Amino acid sequence: MTYCVALKVRDGLVLTSDSRTNAGVDHIASFRKLHVLEIPGERVIFIQSAGNLATTQSVISLLQHQIKSSERHALNVPTLFDVAELVGKTIREVIQRDSYQNQGPNQGVDFSCNMLVSGQIKGDEPRLYHVYPQGNFIEACEDTPYFQIGESKYGKPILDRVVTFSTGLDKALQCALISMDSTLRSNLSVGMPLDLITYEEGLLENPGIRRVDETTEPFMKLRSAWSEGIRALFDSIPLYMKGE
Amino acid sequence: MTYCVALKVRDGLVLTSDSRTNAGVDHIASFRKLHVLEIPGERVIFIQSAGNLATTQSVISLLQHQIKSSERHALNVPTLFDVAELVGKTIREVIQRDSYQNQGPNQGVDFSCNMLVSGQIKGDEPRLYHVYPQGNFIEACEDTPYFQIGESKYGKPILDRVVTFSTGLDKALQCALISMDSTLRSNLSVGMPLDLITYEEGLLENPGIRRVDETTEPFMKLRSAWSEGIRALFDSIPLYMKGE
Repeated sequence: MTYCVALKVRDGLVLTSDSRTNAGVDHIASFRKLHVLEIPGERVIFIQSAGNLATTQSVISLLQHQIKSSERHALNVPTLFDVAELVGKTIREVIQRDSYQNQGPNQGVDFSCNMLVSGQIKGDEPRLYHVYPQGNFIEACEDTPYFQIGESKYGKPILDRVVTFSTGLDKALQCALISMDSTLRSNLSVGMPLDLITYEEGLLENPGIRRVDETTEPFMKLRSAWSEGIRALFDSIPLYMKGE
Repeated sequence: MTYCVALKVRDGLVLTSDSRTNAGVDHIASFRKLHVLEIPGERVIFIQSAGNLATTQSVISLLQHQIKSSERHALNVPTLFDVAELVGKTIREVIQRDSYQNQGPNQGVDFSCNMLVSGQIKGDEPRLYHVYPQGNFIEACEDTPYFQIGESKYGKPILDRVVTFSTGLDKALQCALISMDSTLRSNLSVGMPLDLITYEEGLLENPGIRRVDETTEPFMKLRSAWSEGIRALFDSIPLYMKGE
């Protein structure tokens, strides 16, 4: 499995993805699940993916090929809405191709994938879309400033409790990392290293992907501060519901 | 859906279940998912259920009928292991019966259910089993002192962070309730009222089921103390991973 979370707050975007891929428990490997397409100064597009690795790799490759060979591609369509549409169309094509080749009940394989498409194109604000395996998509808004794909449930409560549209970028990153930490602890199929992007509105280029693993001291400090903080908080709350 | 959690700690058992049942979003209703069978002073058995409501109600009814009509039943088998086996056998029979009646691909209906069987029989310690839809089961131990069924992921991180076998009963109840609260907030298919049991080792009878809803002041105090505590903790932690 995978866990990716993307937040669109007032000041920009925060993206985090894990990198573990597994088929059963034997086939564990590390693959980047955060991809960037850009024309510095004009547009930057981030794509996070969860689901069948063959499908997601194909989709990313095809999107890159389109830039060289198609008239309409991610780097020349006028809006991020159009980019999301392109991604959705490409997902549909790949899934159809693979399902057709197998000419049958897919041998039990799930070819589907979900993608988070975000970024900014000059003249527009930053945007964030969740593209479904069916190719349709929804956009994040002020009421719901974040999307998750993959193993999303473990890390949802902290996002629900803390994040709003007006949360600052650094705080949003901290919250995404805590959400990631809760997931890493509770689910073996999500694993380090993590990829992070903090994108400030208006930058219009890739701010660089930060890689985080067990040797990244600030992340380790955050993990243990949160862990100890939770235990201290738990111990400090009066036993309101004591047995009667 | 449903969310039930059961903890077996050194001093006894803590059980919490929600009561929401839904088929789609239109058919929402409240059903007790925590059942007790007992011979006070000799044995007490708690059964929590998640899954297809027709299946779980049938299983509970059949277990009760067996007490009147069968030679071997939950109130006379020698161990809780045997009770878990009986529950597993009954689950298998009900699922087979319903699948057979439909004589086909179940019309897309999932008849399965999971059950948590716990309690104590005189002469033995308290025990806790998770019985699967296939009828087989596993037992909680010191390393893994809790089981969850239903919508278990939202409320797992707090259990993983806080509970061990040596956690006291009141603290274990508090943790189970926070786990429940995180789930209630993040998933609409889990809803109040909640049923709680705190069972002290050696009691050998039903300590009484406590019902908790929006009017239960101590629970509301716990919810808001936790919620505010989490936000305060989040705000108090230094921004270790600040954008570079």
